Amino acid sequence: MGERDPRAAAAWCRLAEPGDAAAGALVRVLGAGAALAWARRATRSPDDADRAVAELVAEVGHLLPHDRGRAGAPALRRAVARWAPRASELDPERDLRALARLGGTLLVPGDASWPGGLDDLGDGRPHALWVRGDAEVVGRLDRSVALVGARASTAYGEHVAAELGHGLGARDFVVVSGGAYGIDAAAHRGALASGAPTVAFLAGGVDRLYPAGNSGLLRSAIDHGAVASELPPGGVPTRVRFLLRNRLIAAASRATVVVEAAWRSGALSTATHAVSVLRPVGAVPGPVTSMASSGCHRLLREGAAVCVTDADEAAELAGPLGSPGGPGGDAARAGADVRPTDALDAVGRRLFDALPRRRPATVAAIAREAGLALDETLGGLGLLELAGFAERSGDGWRHTR
Amino acid sequence: MGERDPRAAAAWCRLAEPGDAAAGALVRVLGAGAALAWARRATRSPDDADRAVAELVAEVGHLLPHDRGRAGAPALRRAVARWAPRASELDPERDLRALARLGGTLLVPGDASWPGGLDDLGDGRPHALWVRGDAEVVGRLDRSVALVGARASTAYGEHVAAELGHGLGARDFVVVSGGAYGIDAAAHRGALASGAPTVAFLAGGVDRLYPAGNSGLLRSAIDHGAVASELPPGGVPTRVRFLLRNRLIAAASRATVVVEAAWRSGALSTATHAVSVLRPVGAVPGPVTSMASSGCHRLLREGAAVCVTDADEAAELAGPLGSPGGPGGDAARAGADVRPTDALDAVGRRLFDALPRRRPATVAAIAREAGLALDETLGGLGLLELAGFAERSGDGWRHTR
Repeated sequence: MGERDPRAAAAWCRLAEPGDAAAGALVRVLGAGAALAWARRATRSPDDADRAVAELVAEVGHLLPHDRGRAGAPALRRAVARWAPRASELDPERDLRALARLGGTLLVPGDASWPGGLDDLGDGRPHALWVRGDAEVVGRLDRSVALVGARASTAYGEHVAAELGHGLGARDFVVVSGGAYGIDAAAHRGALASGAPTVAFLAGGVDRLYPAGNSGLLRSAIDHGAVASELPPGGVPTRVRFLLRNRLIAAASRATVVVEAAWRSGALSTATHAVSVLRPVGAVPGPVTSMASSGCHRLLREGAAVCVTDADEAAELAGPLGSPGGPGGDAARAGADVRPTDALDAVGRRLFDALPRRRPATVAAIAREAGLALDETLGGLGLLELAGFAERSGDGWRHTR
Repeated sequence: MGERDPRAAAAWCRLAEPGDAAAGALVRVLGAGAALAWARRATRSPDDADRAVAELVAEVGHLLPHDRGRAGAPALRRAVARWAPRASELDPERDLRALARLGGTLLVPGDASWPGGLDDLGDGRPHALWVRGDAEVVGRLDRSVALVGARASTAYGEHVAAELGHGLGARDFVVVSGGAYGIDAAAHRGALASGAPTVAFLAGGVDRLYPAGNSGLLRSAIDHGAVASELPPGGVPTRVRFLLRNRLIAAASRATVVVEAAWRSGALSTATHAVSVLRPVGAVPGPVTSMASSGCHRLLREGAAVCVTDADEAAELAGPLGSPGGPGGDAARAGADVRPTDALDAVGRRLFDALPRRRPATVAAIAREAGLALDETLGGLGLLELAGFAERSGDGWRHTR
């Protein structure tokens, strides 16, 4: 249990589909190596499967997820049937050699660069990460923000994604995304432009830099960061795998920001995963006339996401590096818009409003106009004069010119 | 107490500034007529003021707001000093004649058309509303939404305000706003274009259709709705009065939606008033690159407002006419985007992904690709075939063409 066994972890990546909770439970209980040995035996024949499941449940059934009150026997039996067609073809050494030829690294749970956030996925935790590029960057995802969004993005969304990517990179955050067209690509590009590393989690093997149109960008990510996948080289990106890949983006990052997403977009699944592992979620608003922002507005409306409008706010999500009211956030922006009359109290402001701009008015007339007592008016006018807002003229008062 | 005394209410509108809580408390405790008689006596001289305050506190001090533990004597004494410069000039009959010449109506608390929402303002409740147009429309504000926003609006904001105004009008809501340039004007125009009435609360007297550039629009509001103010004819709109007018918009309406507002905008004060009288607040998002939306994003970010993107969502705020998940809302929109494969279960979706598009694959190959058991694969392919997604070809399977 917990012993480092990269060969077994690599085998599990091929044997079970991403997110296979039965595989996750088995590895959690027995460790990757013993779990693999058990699976090899159980997948030999249906009789072997029945026997192996019965023995396992008798021994460690209390540690397995329960299925309608019973230890996970039926779920395990189904899982073994799923693994069986692949068990005979397992050759983890070949997969590891393929990774080595790409100059890649296999990260397994417990490695120094293993992103600890992935452990929050429970039995859905990946067995390993196949990484090309700088594996140490993957180990720095405790200071990261995922920027995700639609492939069918608008120029507005791409602009904002690039700005956020750049701003987060400049603030020493690793920008995580999925390497797809549209928002993902703009986010990676923005981060790289800031000189910071970026990490792309792929839905297929890291030998395929998918989509092909982004292969140049993904090569840059490998040179200045990393691409990572839970599938061994050769793994084909399917729609289900894209959706399951999203859980890695959500769990490996400290926070997820959806930049642009239609009402129904895969990016929303990343947000859902982030919520389920208790990561903060942000959404960038856009014009309500743009369908490309309707998914973001949906998240805001449902209270599932915080409104994020710039890199400071995205960084705050990944806190505890600042708070919404802290410097660089709302307060600083509000401070940029202070009016001289802000320092006036309620009486001062009323008098300021009541003071004529040109023809001076008497104290009595100003008091009447402002709805203030005569003595309040006199005292207040004196203070306004000191502050440079009011001046005497003849026997009356008016605004300073 | 509570007896209808329009003459006294009209006098209070001139004697006290909008939102004067001392005047509100006095009228609440004594009724408008007796409160006015008391104020006339108290404002004769400082000695009269001291005597009148002492008597009042002795008699009904327990009903007055307390000032650091003492009955409101000091606050009342200050209030009397504020009222004194105006008391000698009071002539409510003249103000009522001026209103009559405009064809207007004075509404006082308790009138059938008095907007009950204003009573939530407590001692800040206006003493009366000076109304031009159809006073009965003012009585229908229990089905209304306030649309407010910046004068410095963008074409985007005006477009959205007009759409919301039109959509709310078409849904039989009265659209309430402040008659200002920009968002207010667009909202009124949208409502009028739908054939529905609209109500503008003005910061000055209803004889001044301020701002002048909107006088045509405000005349249309009078012809197909109403304009209303708590100031008697001749009242000058000052900055403080604009801010206090906003409390009327917020309290008279069932919900307030901020369409476009800079980081610091008077429209945000309407939102703050709405929160303080427990009305739902909505904010329309916009491009994060637009400063004109930054105040809306601030409200969303602080959780002070719900994200509103169309008239349905604005109407839902003013509920209980619908809920976010109800028909016409999110559910209907989501329904417009159903995919045929949505009906598939997890196995079906995996198989759908694993099925080749062209060259047929064997059941074993498909099972391996999908990570499913052979029997699951066989059964699932049969269901996919029934659903029209898969077809047999030779001894293999592929997507239907």
